[in-house]
Amino acid sequence: MAAKFLPATTLRLTPFSTLRFSSFFHISKPLFRPLRRPFLEGFPANARRRCFCTAVSESTGSGEGKKVDNSYENRFGSKVGEFRRKLKIAEVKGGADQGLGRVGQSLSIMGWVRTLRSQSSVTFIEVDSQSRFNLIDCSRDFGLKFVLKINDGSCLSNLQCVMNPDAEGYHQVESGSVLTGASISVQGTIVASQGTKQKVELKVDKIIVVGKCDSSYPIQKKRVSREFLRTKAHLRPRTNTFGAVARVRNALAYATHKFFQESGFVWVASPIITASDCEGAGEQFCVTTLIPSSHETTDSSIDAIPKTKGGLVDWSQDFFGKPAFLTVSGQLNGETYATALSDVYTFGPTFRAENSNTSRHLAEFWMIEPELAFADLNDDMACATAYLQYVVKYVLDNCKEDMEFFDTWIEKGIIHRLSEVVEKEFLQLGYTDAIELLLKANKKFEFPVKWGLDLQSEHERYITEEAFGGRPVIIRDYPKEIKAFYMRENDDGKTVAAMDMLVPRIGELIGGSQREERLEVLEARLDELKLDKESYWWYLDLRRYGSVPHAGFGLGFERLVQFATGIDNIRDVIPFPRSPGSADF
Amino acid sequence: MAAKFLPATTLRLTPFSTLRFSSFFHISKPLFRPLRRPFLEGFPANARRRCFCTAVSESTGSGEGKKVDNSYENRFGSKVGEFRRKLKIAEVKGGADQGLGRVGQSLSIMGWVRTLRSQSSVTFIEVDSQSRFNLIDCSRDFGLKFVLKINDGSCLSNLQCVMNPDAEGYHQVESGSVLTGASISVQGTIVASQGTKQKVELKVDKIIVVGKCDSSYPIQKKRVSREFLRTKAHLRPRTNTFGAVARVRNALAYATHKFFQESGFVWVASPIITASDCEGAGEQFCVTTLIPSSHETTDSSIDAIPKTKGGLVDWSQDFFGKPAFLTVSGQLNGETYATALSDVYTFGPTFRAENSNTSRHLAEFWMIEPELAFADLNDDMACATAYLQYVVKYVLDNCKEDMEFFDTWIEKGIIHRLSEVVEKEFLQLGYTDAIELLLKANKKFEFPVKWGLDLQSEHERYITEEAFGGRPVIIRDYPKEIKAFYMRENDDGKTVAAMDMLVPRIGELIGGSQREERLEVLEARLDELKLDKESYWWYLDLRRYGSVPHAGFGLGFERLVQFATGIDNIRDVIPFPRSPGSADF
Repeated sequence: MAAKFLPATTLRLTPFSTLRFSSFFHISKPLFRPLRRPFLEGFPANARRRCFCTAVSESTGSGEGKKVDNSYENRFGSKVGEFRRKLKIAEVKGGADQGLGRVGQSLSIMGWVRTLRSQSSVTFIEVDSQSRFNLIDCSRDFGLKFVLKINDGSCLSNLQCVMNPDAEGYHQVESGSVLTGASISVQGTIVASQGTKQKVELKVDKIIVVGKCDSSYPIQKKRVSREFLRTKAHLRPRTNTFGAVARVRNALAYATHKFFQESGFVWVASPIITASDCEGAGEQFCVTTLIPSSHETTDSSIDAIPKTKGGLVDWSQDFFGKPAFLTVSGQLNGETYATALSDVYTFGPTFRAENSNTSRHLAEFWMIEPELAFADLNDDMACATAYLQYVVKYVLDNCKEDMEFFDTWIEKGIIHRLSEVVEKEFLQLGYTDAIELLLKANKKFEFPVKWGLDLQSEHERYITEEAFGGRPVIIRDYPKEIKAFYMRENDDGKTVAAMDMLVPRIGELIGGSQREERLEVLEARLDELKLDKESYWWYLDLRRYGSVPHAGFGLGFERLVQFATGIDNIRDVIPFPRSPGSADF
Repeated sequence: MAAKFLPATTLRLTPFSTLRFSSFFHISKPLFRPLRRPFLEGFPANARRRCFCTAVSESTGSGEGKKVDNSYENRFGSKVGEFRRKLKIAEVKGGADQGLGRVGQSLSIMGWVRTLRSQSSVTFIEVDSQSRFNLIDCSRDFGLKFVLKINDGSCLSNLQCVMNPDAEGYHQVESGSVLTGASISVQGTIVASQGTKQKVELKVDKIIVVGKCDSSYPIQKKRVSREFLRTKAHLRPRTNTFGAVARVRNALAYATHKFFQESGFVWVASPIITASDCEGAGEQFCVTTLIPSSHETTDSSIDAIPKTKGGLVDWSQDFFGKPAFLTVSGQLNGETYATALSDVYTFGPTFRAENSNTSRHLAEFWMIEPELAFADLNDDMACATAYLQYVVKYVLDNCKEDMEFFDTWIEKGIIHRLSEVVEKEFLQLGYTDAIELLLKANKKFEFPVKWGLDLQSEHERYITEEAFGGRPVIIRDYPKEIKAFYMRENDDGKTVAAMDMLVPRIGELIGGSQREERLEVLEARLDELKLDKESYWWYLDLRRYGSVPHAGFGLGFERLVQFATGIDNIRDVIPFPRSPGSADF
C-alpha cells in the first residue's frame, strides 16, 4: 500500500531515509484514486470538480435479443453527466478574507506556471512525545523546496504553491521539466502564507504536469513590449495586462447586456453584410465571391472574375446579385425594431475600410447602438449617462484586482477617475456655448475654433479635462452641416439634435442624436444632400407608418475598454485587432 | 379654465349639451400640463415617465465677465437628466394579477394601434342624489365609443383602450385620422375589463396622435404570409409572430450570457475578418477593397482592379495586404483564450458562402462557441446539456405569453416539448451504437446507413424523435474521416472524441469535440490531411506551450431560436436574413 506513494523515479533521498519515509509517514487518506478517464491520467479525482461524466457505459448486451425497439434508452443510452462550475483560483482567493476561510481545505487547482523558484528547505524539527525527532521532516534536508505561482486566468493573482520533496510528482519539478508556461494540476491543502503578498497558499501534496512548455516560450518572466505581444496575439492573454484587459472587457460587455435588459431593451442582431444603399458613414469593405476564393494568391486570375461586355464587374453573378458590403453601423436597422418594440439595442461588429494606421482606429470593432422610441435628445443623453455610469460601476465593483493593477501599472489614478464618472453628475452644454468656451480659453489650439467647424480631439479633451475638471460633458445641438442626414433638425433651422459625450483621455466616447421623424423634413434633407430617396424607401416607411420621436446613440466598445483600463493603443483592447495590412490569426 | 378641456374641433354635441358638458363635468386635476419640449407637443407630463431631462438651460450671462475659467460648470453646463425605465404594457398587464392591482391608477402608454373599432355607446344613466340624470352620460349618446388595441412591443398582448366622446382628442379618432399602424399616446385610468380576453383595460381620458399611418400600410389586420413579410423586414417586427420571435430571441441571447457568466466563462470577441489560412469548414466570403467600392455597379471596371504582371489579382495592394475572408468559426481563436483564461465563449456572427437556398441555411448567422480548458468530451457534453436546459428554462419562465402564442399558432405542443428538454436527462450513445440502432430500425431511410458514413438529418431525427421518444440524444465518437482535423483521436485509432447533440424537429443542434492537445498527434493528422503546418503555427503553439486537454462546442443561434419557437424557416428567426441573392435592408 505504501508503495503507492513512492515517487516513480529517484528521489534525492538515501535508501535509508526512503525507508524511513515509507515507514513513518502517516497517510490518512490515499492521494491516488482509481483512474476513470485515460487522457487526464493521474489526475486526482477531486481535481475534477467539474468532471462528473462518469460515462457509465452500460453493456449493450447485444446477444440478448429479448428487448423491443422502444427500449433503446436501456440498451444504448447512458446519461450525460452533471455540469458544475470548475473550482478556480478566483474562488479560492476571492472574497473579503482572501482565502483565509479555506485554510485546512484540501483542493485541486489546474493552471499554468507563471514562475518557479527553488530554495533550500529549512530544516524543520518537531519534537513530539514519541520520538525525539520527526524523521520525515529530516528527509526534507535532502531536497529543495519549490515555490510555484500558477494562474488559471480567473483572476490576476496567482496561487502560490509550495512543494516539499515529499510531494508526489516532486521529481518532475526537480528534474526541470516544469518551466514557465507549463500547465499543471496541483492538489494540496490551503495554508496561511508566510509571505506578505498573499494571505494563503497551497501546500502541495501532489503535482501533475499536464503539458510541458517548450523553452522557446516567448512570454518568459522578463518584460516584453506590447508591440511584440501583438505579434503573439495567441499567447498574450497569458500575460497580466492582457488577462486583465480580457476580464474587464468581458465585464463591460456583460454589464452592457445587464443594463439594457434590466431597462426593458431588446437585443437586436443588425446585419453584418448589407447591400443596402443607405449606409453613409465611412469607407466600406466589399464582400464578394466573385474573386476566386482561395488562400492561394496564385489562384486569383483577373480573367476569372465575371465581367460584362462593357468590361465591368458582373455583379449579377455575385453571391448577393449585387455589390454587398460590411456594415458601418446598425443604426438604421435598429430603428426598424425600435419602431416596433420601443426600445432596442445592437451589440455587434462594425467595419471601416479607412486607411488609418493609428492607435485610435480599427478596421473591425464592436459597437453598441441603443435606439429608444418615444424619446427625444434629453432622454437619449439621460440613457447614455446612466449606461456609462452603470457599466463603469460594474467594473469597479467586480474587477477590483484588475483595476488596481491598471491603477498601478497602466494609468495612475484610473480608479479615482472612474469613480468620479460614477459619482459626479454629467453636464451638457450646447455646441454654440462650447465654441464660445473654446474661443475664450486661454489656450492655443492646433485646429481652428469657429462656429460651423467640427470639434477636434484637442478641443474635446480641453473641455472635459480642463474646463470641466475631468467631468464627462455632453455637447449638443451641432450645426447640421457637420452631422448626418438622419438627425432631427432643431427649430433654429441651423442645428440638429445631436449629442457627443466627451470623457477625459478619450474625447468623444458616445455619439448620438434624435432622429428626424418627420417624413417631409427628412425627404427634404435627402434632396438637399442629393441622396437617392429610392434607396431609403424602407427607412422612410418608418416615418410613413406610425412615426414616433426616437433617439439613440452609438458607442465604440473598444473605446470604452480603453476608457476603463487606461490602455493607450486600441489594438491592445480587442483580442485580434484588424488594421491596414494586418488580419492575422 | 374649463375652456382648456374643450376639444379644439367640433364635438358631436349640440350647443346645449356642450354647455352642460362644461358646466357639470367635474375635473379634479388638470389633464393638460405646461409643455416643456416642442417635439412631444401635447404629451401629458406623466406620459413621459422616462423623460426627466428638464434641460433647465441656465442663462449663460455672457455679459458678466466676472467669473474665472474654472467656473464653466456654473456658466455653461446644465445637468443631464435622470434616466428611468419607461412604463410599458408588459409592466401594466404583467404579473400574476394581469394588471388588476393597477385598477384605479392613472397612467400613460405610448404605442402603435393594432386595431380600432367603433360601437354605439350604450346609454348609461346614473342616478344620483342631486339630479335625476347625470347629463354628462347623456352626452355620450351623441358619439360612438371607440375601442383601440395598442401595442408597444414589450409583450405580445395589446392594451385595450376604451374611449368615449368626452375623451380629449376624441375627434381625431372619430375623423378617421387614426388607422392601424398609427402611433399614439393615451392617458387614462386602468379599469377592470368587461371582456374575457383581458383582465384590465384603459379608460381613455386623452389621446394624442403621435404619428399617423398611411393607408398603404402593408401590415393590416388581414393575415399576411411570412413570405410576403420577408419583403417587409423593416415592418414585420410589428406583427404578433415576429414580435414574439424577437423577444424570445432576445431572451435566449441574454440567457446565453447569463449561463456562461454565472459559470465563470469569459466572453471573447473572435475576429470576423481573417486572413488566417487555418479556417477549414465551408466556403468563405472574400473581404476586399480592391474592387472600386461603390454602390453604383457602373463604377466597377475590371481594369481598375490592381493586377500583377502575370494577370493575377495583386493582393499586396488590398487592405490587408493579402486575401482576407469572413470567418466561418471562432473556435480556433477561442482556443487561444481558453488556454489562458480556462473557460471562454464567443457569441458573434459567422458566415458561409454556400449557395444553399434552403429554409435551413443562412449566409450570415450567429454562433455561440464555448471552449473549456482542462476538460474532456464528457465535460463538454455536460456543459452543452446544462447550457441548453438553462436557456430553454429561461425562455419558458420569462416568455410565457409568447410561448403560449407559439404553442397555439406555430407548433402545437411546443411548451410540452421544451419542458421535457428541461426536465428529462439527456442520453449519450456512441456513433457505433447509433449505426447499429439505425440498422435495426424498422424503417426505410433515403440515405444509406453504414459505419463510416455521416448521419443524415433523417437518421438524426429518427434517433431523437422515434428511438428515444423526443428526448435529446448526444452521439459521440464519430469516425475520424468524417470529422475535422482538430478533434482528439480516440485510443481505437478509428474514431475521434466528437459529439453531436440531436434534438427533435431540428436534428443536430450542437456539435462539439475534445480538441487534439497532443502536438505530435495533431501534426501527424495535419500531414495526413495534407494541410500546411506552417499556416497553423499559432494553433500548434498552443500545444507547444503548456498544452491542456480542452473541449468545446458550437451552436448556431438561429437554429436554437427555431428550436425554441417552432418557426420552420430560418429566415424568419433573424431580423435581416442573408441568403443567395438577398442582402437587402
